[in-house]
Amino acid sequence: MKRTHNCGQLTIQNVDQNVILQGWVKKIRKMGGMTFVDIRDRYGITQLILDESQAKEIKVEFVIEIEGIVLERKAKNHDLSTGEIEVKVDEIKIINKAELTPFQIEDQIESLEDTRLTYRYLDLRRPNMQQNLITRAKLNSVIRKNLENLNFLEVETPIFGKATPEGARDFLVPSRLNENKFYALPQSPQLYKQLLMISGIDRYYQIVKCFRDEDLRIDRQPEFTQLDMEMSFATGEDIIFIIENLMKEILWEIKGVKLSTPFKRLQYKDAIELYGVDKPDLRYDLKIHDLTNIFAENQIKLFQINSDQNAKIKGVMIDELLNKTQIAELEQVAKQNHLNNLGFVKYENGNWTGSIAGQLSEQEKAAILKEFNIQNKGTLLVNKEKYEIISQAMGAIRTTLAKQFNLADPNKYEILWVVDFPLFEFSEEENRYVAAHHPFTMPKKESLQDFDLNKKQALANAYDIVLNGFEIGGGSQRITDPSIQDRMFKAIEMPPETIESNFGWFINAYKYGAPYHAGIALGLDRIAMLLSHAESIRDVIAFPKNSSGIDPMSNAPDYVSSAQLEELNIALTAKKK
Amino acid sequence: MKRTHNCGQLTIQNVDQNVILQGWVKKIRKMGGMTFVDIRDRYGITQLILDESQAKEIKVEFVIEIEGIVLERKAKNHDLSTGEIEVKVDEIKIINKAELTPFQIEDQIESLEDTRLTYRYLDLRRPNMQQNLITRAKLNSVIRKNLENLNFLEVETPIFGKATPEGARDFLVPSRLNENKFYALPQSPQLYKQLLMISGIDRYYQIVKCFRDEDLRIDRQPEFTQLDMEMSFATGEDIIFIIENLMKEILWEIKGVKLSTPFKRLQYKDAIELYGVDKPDLRYDLKIHDLTNIFAENQIKLFQINSDQNAKIKGVMIDELLNKTQIAELEQVAKQNHLNNLGFVKYENGNWTGSIAGQLSEQEKAAILKEFNIQNKGTLLVNKEKYEIISQAMGAIRTTLAKQFNLADPNKYEILWVVDFPLFEFSEEENRYVAAHHPFTMPKKESLQDFDLNKKQALANAYDIVLNGFEIGGGSQRITDPSIQDRMFKAIEMPPETIESNFGWFINAYKYGAPYHAGIALGLDRIAMLLSHAESIRDVIAFPKNSSGIDPMSNAPDYVSSAQLEELNIALTAKKK
Repeated sequence: MKRTHNCGQLTIQNVDQNVILQGWVKKIRKMGGMTFVDIRDRYGITQLILDESQAKEIKVEFVIEIEGIVLERKAKNHDLSTGEIEVKVDEIKIINKAELTPFQIEDQIESLEDTRLTYRYLDLRRPNMQQNLITRAKLNSVIRKNLENLNFLEVETPIFGKATPEGARDFLVPSRLNENKFYALPQSPQLYKQLLMISGIDRYYQIVKCFRDEDLRIDRQPEFTQLDMEMSFATGEDIIFIIENLMKEILWEIKGVKLSTPFKRLQYKDAIELYGVDKPDLRYDLKIHDLTNIFAENQIKLFQINSDQNAKIKGVMIDELLNKTQIAELEQVAKQNHLNNLGFVKYENGNWTGSIAGQLSEQEKAAILKEFNIQNKGTLLVNKEKYEIISQAMGAIRTTLAKQFNLADPNKYEILWVVDFPLFEFSEEENRYVAAHHPFTMPKKESLQDFDLNKKQALANAYDIVLNGFEIGGGSQRITDPSIQDRMFKAIEMPPETIESNFGWFINAYKYGAPYHAGIALGLDRIAMLLSHAESIRDVIAFPKNSSGIDPMSNAPDYVSSAQLEELNIALTAKKK
Repeated sequence: MKRTHNCGQLTIQNVDQNVILQGWVKKIRKMGGMTFVDIRDRYGITQLILDESQAKEIKVEFVIEIEGIVLERKAKNHDLSTGEIEVKVDEIKIINKAELTPFQIEDQIESLEDTRLTYRYLDLRRPNMQQNLITRAKLNSVIRKNLENLNFLEVETPIFGKATPEGARDFLVPSRLNENKFYALPQSPQLYKQLLMISGIDRYYQIVKCFRDEDLRIDRQPEFTQLDMEMSFATGEDIIFIIENLMKEILWEIKGVKLSTPFKRLQYKDAIELYGVDKPDLRYDLKIHDLTNIFAENQIKLFQINSDQNAKIKGVMIDELLNKTQIAELEQVAKQNHLNNLGFVKYENGNWTGSIAGQLSEQEKAAILKEFNIQNKGTLLVNKEKYEIISQAMGAIRTTLAKQFNLADPNKYEILWVVDFPLFEFSEEENRYVAAHHPFTMPKKESLQDFDLNKKQALANAYDIVLNGFEIGGGSQRITDPSIQDRMFKAIEMPPETIESNFGWFINAYKYGAPYHAGIALGLDRIAMLLSHAESIRDVIAFPKNSSGIDPMSNAPDYVSSAQLEELNIALTAKKK
C-alpha cells in the first residue's frame, strides 16, 4: 500500500482522516494499556497510539506501515510540525525488522567518528545529518537557479585529464588501453574553463568534483566539490558583483539572513597587518596593533631578545582580565606559531600587572590605554619579532581569544573580499619565484609594466572571498594576451621545453582569438559546513573519508588482485622508508 | 567597456540606439567602399557596417569590440533573430587577434574528427556544437527542476570507492597514503544510493559521472554521465510513473514535442520475438514474423542447411523492391550476425522473383502475402536458424532496411519500456548463472518462490527505457529482504567468503531496518545526443576522448615521472603480448 502522507505532514487540518504512514520506529513508550510510538522519516515525526497487541512485535528502528485515524492531541507539542495531532492505529504491518543499532539514532550522540563512519547509513538517519544534506542540496539549487538566470551555461569537463606538474599532487589513473600512460584527476577544471571562454561559451558554470592528493589534514578530503565559473568580456569586478548577489541569495534563501552589498574589501597587506592572516574572521574586532612606536624608547627585556632592526612590536588587547589557564593557552598558541615568548600586561582600574608591567613608563601606559581605547580593564598580549612571524602569531592569538570569550556569533555571517594578493611567492625549496595562485593569473594594472622585473612587489588581479574566517573561494582575471603569458613563464623561470610539454597545447589556444575573461571557484563543502553550523566538512558529505583517506564503511581503498594490476601493466613496489 | 547587448539580441526595437557589442568576426564582405562584417557570440550573429579604414586591420576570428548605431536593414534576413537590423560602426577595437584557424568555424565542416578534437576549443565555436551544449544544460535543468519539485534530494556520492569485482572492469586509483591499496572509480553509485534509502533519505537523485574500463567501442567513453535516482516505499511502477512524466517534460521543454503517457510496454521475450533486440526502434514497424508454420510442408533447400529441430524460420518484409546493392548490404549484415545465408523473394503485381521464388508453392505465396498484408509489391528476407541467431540477425536486417529507406523520422520520439527481463543469464565462461542485471535485483513476484531453482525461467523486476532504438536507462526493484538476498547469492554460486569480503559491509546494512525501494539510472549522454540529433555522444560532450580513450587536445593519458610512480609505490611492467 502507498502512504497517504509522510511523517512530517499531518496537522490539525487532517483530524478524523484515515491515513497510511510508513517510516522508522523512533521511540516506544508504554502507558497503561496503550503504547505511544513515534514514527520517523526524512520529513518529520508523528506520534502513534497502539494497543498492547499491536505494539508487541515492534522494536526501535523497525520499518513499519500503519493505517489509522488522525486525532487531535490533548497535550500539544509545539516544537513538532505534527505536534497537534496523533494517529490512532487500526492496522500495523512490519516492513522490515532491525537489529539493535550500534548507537542510538539521536542528534546528541557520543560515538567515535570512525564508528559513525562505519555505520554511516545509520549516522545519516540522525535528523541533523539529514538536515545538513538538505541544506547542501538547497545550496546547489539556489546556485544553479541564480546562475542559469544570468545565462551561465552548465558544461561538464572531464574527470580524466592530463597531469599538471605545477602545483599540488595529482591523483593518477593507469590507462589499460594506453600502455604505461596515466590519466590525472583534475585539481580544478581551470584549463578547460579557460578553453570554454576561447570557444565562446561566454558564461560557464559547473558544480564539480575536484581532487588533490595531499597529506590529509584534519579537515581535508581527497575529493571535494566546487562551484566553478568563468565569464567572458568580464573583469574581476564583474565576478565580484555576481558572487556578491549569489551569496546574498544563498544566505537569504537558506538562513533568512540579509547581507548588504557591496561586501567589505581588504587588501592582502592590510589583512596581514590587522589580522595576521589572509582570511580574517570579522565577526569580532580585536585588531592587531603595531606598537613599535609606542615602545620605541623603552628597553623592555622581552623585546631585547630579538635584535633584528626590522622586527616589529605587535600586540592584541582584549577588554577582559585573562586568568592563568587562558594565558597559558595563548603562550602555547604563540609557540606553535614560532613565537617563543609572549609578554602580557593586565590593566584594571589603574593597576597594571603581568610579565612586563613593571618595565612600563607612565607615558607608555597612557599610550596603551589610548591606542586600544581601554576604559576599565583589559589584557594586552605583545612581543617583538620579524614581521611575518609576529603577524601570524598575533593572528592566532586573536582567534584563540575569540574562542576563549565566545566572541564569534554563530548566527552572524561576515563576508569580505581579500584583494591585491602578491603575484609571486618565493620558493625557498626551488630557489625561485613561483606563481602565488597559478601562472595564468593576470597581474594588476599597476604591475603590468614591471611584474617580471619587480617580482616581490608585483600584485595579482586576484580575489579571495572569506566567510567567518574561512576562505570559501578565490579567483582572478586571466592572462589572455600571449605576450604577457610569455613574460609570466619567464618570470617563474620555466624552461621553454617545460612550457611546451606541459602547457603548449593550452597556450596555443590563445592564438586563435580569445576574449578577456575572469572567474572564480567556491568551495561548496566549506560553505555547506558554515551554513549547517557543522564542526567539520565531513558532516556535510554523505560518505566522506576519514583523516587517513579511508572509508571505514566499505574499507576503501583496498588491495586489488594481481590479475587487475597485470592488466594495467603495473606492479607494486615496497615503500621507501 | 561593457557590451550593452549580446550578438543575438538587437531587433527592430533597438533602431537608433547606440550600442556596444563584443564578439568574434565571423565573415567579412567588401561592397564598394563599405565592409559588412558578421560578429558572432554564443547568442547569435549581428551584421556590422564598417568603412574601409575601420575594416582594414581585422580578420576572421579576431575578437573585437564595436560601438555604433542600430539601423533598420533594407534587405531583411528572417532566418536570423537580428536579421531586421544592422549596426553602423563608429568605433572599433581589436580585443585579441587570431591566426588562421585549422578549419573554418562553420556548421558544415569536413574535418577529420581527430583534428576537431585537437582543436576542440575551435570546434566548440561552431553554432551547432554550442547548441548541443545548450541542449544538454537545458536537459539537466529540466531534470533537476522536475525532481526537486517531487522532493527528490540531490546527494553527492563518492568518486573514490571500493572495487566491485562482479561486473565490468573498474578504473583504479593508487592511494599514496595507504600503501599498495587502490580506490576504484564507481561504475554507478548503486550501493551508495541503496544505503541512502536505508538512511531514510526517501528520495534521492544525482547527475553524476560514472566510469567503466571497457574496451572502447565506437561510441563509448571511459567516463559518462547518468541521472541516478532511487525512491523508498516505492515499486518499479512508481519509478516508471515518475520517469514517464519526466521524459514528457523533457521532450516538451526542449523539443516542443508532446508525448502521451503511459508509454508502451513490451516484455523482453516479445521484444526479441518481434524486433530481435531488447531496444527496438518503434518509429517504424517492420516486425519480424515467424514463418515456421507457413513453410512447415516445404523442403526449400536453404532451410535444409540447418537441421536443428528447434530452428525457426523467420522473415522481415518491406513493401519495397530491393536492388542488388541493397540485398548485398543485407547479406553482409546477416553474416556479421552469424547468419551465413539470407534468402529473399520479391513480389510485384503477381510476379515472384529472387533466390527462393522458384521453390514456393502457390499456397505459400498466398500465405506470405496474407501474413505481411502485402498489396502491390514487397521484398521478403528470410532464413532458418536457431532462435537466438535468427532473431538477432533479423533484428539487424530490420534496422538496416529502415536506414535504406529512411523509415526513421528524426523528429519522431518513440519511447517504450521493456520489462520482464530474465533474472539470470548463463555465463559459458564461468559455467554458472550470473545476475543479468546485478545481484541486488528483486525477482518478479511470480518468480519469488523458485527463482533459485528455476533459473532459466526466472524473471526480474527490472525495466529498461528505450528511445528510438537506444537504451536510455534501466532500473529495478531492489532486494531488501536479507533472506532473498541470501538465496540470490547462492543462486549465482557466490562462495560465502566472497560475499563477505565483497559485499559484507553492504548486506549488513539491511539488518538495521530498510524500506522497500526501487530506482533507475538514465544515460544523459545518449539522451542529449538524441535530443540534439547528433551522430555520436562525442558531439554532446565538451571534451570527449576519441575511440582509443585519448584526448588529442591535451594528449591525456600521458607518461608520468618515475618520481610520481615511486611516491605511489608502483612500477611499470611490460605488457603481456
